[in-house]
Amino acid sequence: MSERRPEGAKRLAIIAGGGLLPIHVARAARLHGEDPFILALSNEAEQDWSEFDHAGVGVGDYAGISRIFSTEGIDRAVLSGSVRRRPEWRDIRPTVRTLMQVPGIVRTLLNGGDDTVLKMVIRLIEANGVRVVGADEIAPELLAAEGPIGAVKPDDEAARDIAAASAAALALGSLDVGQGAVAVGGRVIALEGAEGTDLMLERVASLRREGRISRRRKGVLVKLCKPNQDRRADLPSIGVDTVRRAAEAGLAGIACEAGRSLVLDRAALIEEADRAGLFVTGILPRDAGARP
Amino acid sequence: MSERRPEGAKRLAIIAGGGLLPIHVARAARLHGEDPFILALSNEAEQDWSEFDHAGVGVGDYAGISRIFSTEGIDRAVLSGSVRRRPEWRDIRPTVRTLMQVPGIVRTLLNGGDDTVLKMVIRLIEANGVRVVGADEIAPELLAAEGPIGAVKPDDEAARDIAAASAAALALGSLDVGQGAVAVGGRVIALEGAEGTDLMLERVASLRREGRISRRRKGVLVKLCKPNQDRRADLPSIGVDTVRRAAEAGLAGIACEAGRSLVLDRAALIEEADRAGLFVTGILPRDAGARP
Repeated sequence: MSERRPEGAKRLAIIAGGGLLPIHVARAARLHGEDPFILALSNEAEQDWSEFDHAGVGVGDYAGISRIFSTEGIDRAVLSGSVRRRPEWRDIRPTVRTLMQVPGIVRTLLNGGDDTVLKMVIRLIEANGVRVVGADEIAPELLAAEGPIGAVKPDDEAARDIAAASAAALALGSLDVGQGAVAVGGRVIALEGAEGTDLMLERVASLRREGRISRRRKGVLVKLCKPNQDRRADLPSIGVDTVRRAAEAGLAGIACEAGRSLVLDRAALIEEADRAGLFVTGILPRDAGARP
Repeated sequence: MSERRPEGAKRLAIIAGGGLLPIHVARAARLHGEDPFILALSNEAEQDWSEFDHAGVGVGDYAGISRIFSTEGIDRAVLSGSVRRRPEWRDIRPTVRTLMQVPGIVRTLLNGGDDTVLKMVIRLIEANGVRVVGADEIAPELLAAEGPIGAVKPDDEAARDIAAASAAALALGSLDVGQGAVAVGGRVIALEGAEGTDLMLERVASLRREGRISRRRKGVLVKLCKPNQDRRADLPSIGVDTVRRAAEAGLAGIACEAGRSLVLDRAALIEEADRAGLFVTGILPRDAGARP
């Protein structure tokens, strides 16, 4: 759609995984005067990218990504969206330069924790002379602030659930596992692993239907950034769909980390939350002061 | 089936929740010369108890339980099996004595963590003059020992997965959440919440089918006792069905805590594990020395 860029112009790349986040980041970048080029990761990005210049790349195809950086004049890249599938051996095609500059990449890509892998991907991209920036640097208005978003506020019972789920999410985050937890009636009943937030919420809905969660207690979803996560890596995000699934799971609301998580499609999210009577709030976890 | 017990004889009660554990404990108790009376918790115990004297009771019905203790001459009780459903207000029928002796019971039963609730249940039973004993005191042969059970042994990759999953299970256990975790390729991909081990393993099988776990890496299920868990409360257990589900999830094996978890139907479990090529091993988690 965009015209051919003039010589020497510097362009932003968005390396797009799954979910709704990348398209929101791309649109926000355009509002900020950027003309982003989208590298849609195969098997992950199911978006329709026709409104942007774009190309598909394999999740381990660093030679292909490097070539696009060069032909499109990319100087900055945003990593955005989920990468569910780890690359297999056959998918990893590093350049000779990245192999020399970033030893151990293949082993890390195959076996590291999410956080370790993302840090490695950032090093790989920066070895190409491209600066990796956070989605929140391009579109700061996406960041969650502290306090309620929308009309509903958490009550005392919700505050207790927020504390319980936060403690579990922090304990897991420091082990580079998951970002989410659900607490109901003061006890943690679900923890997010590789299945992601949506499937965890479906599990809560199903436990509720089977009478394995008290019907008198609603509960809360908490999403925190891992304590050691590079904020340029994918920040936790919530969207309209998260609110809808939280409502289906019978929860009272959602708490996400202020300053370190993204709120997508904010106007629609507030409308959905208000309609369903759910709160959505930005929190600072108790030990936030100790964070990097 | 058993004859009427002589006057003054002291009888063992088994308070039976769901799963296979209670019937194994009851049979083991009989082998040790006991004539156990089964209190099958309504909505939880789906066993056929016809081979034992038994009665159904509500999970919050302490008045009913107390009456049976008295009429059956119970002096010791074992808590066994899972209690998936928390009692609702209407289910809780304490005796006046328990209300006086154990203040705050109702609130704890409704809202406490699993561990807090189990400790409270133990206090309630002991307020009736009945001593609560661990299943392993009645049938010590059920306890997992350190090292492999069966023919297959964990290799180096499995040892790495055991370490990763143990760290997560310990972090959660100290918050009174879950007992289980699955690690594949050195990273934790699933954590056990209120859904229990079986459903967590189904989730892993489904992640594997969808290609969201490396096909080259098998992975390990780890089950640990919570650090502060009263061992008279329900210990983690594994059975033939656990081995079958672990095989369906493509795992290399199962590690459970030596001395603090139960191996049910050991001969059949070994046969199934050997047939499927899975290891089953007892481990001492790294910080076991610091445990009570």
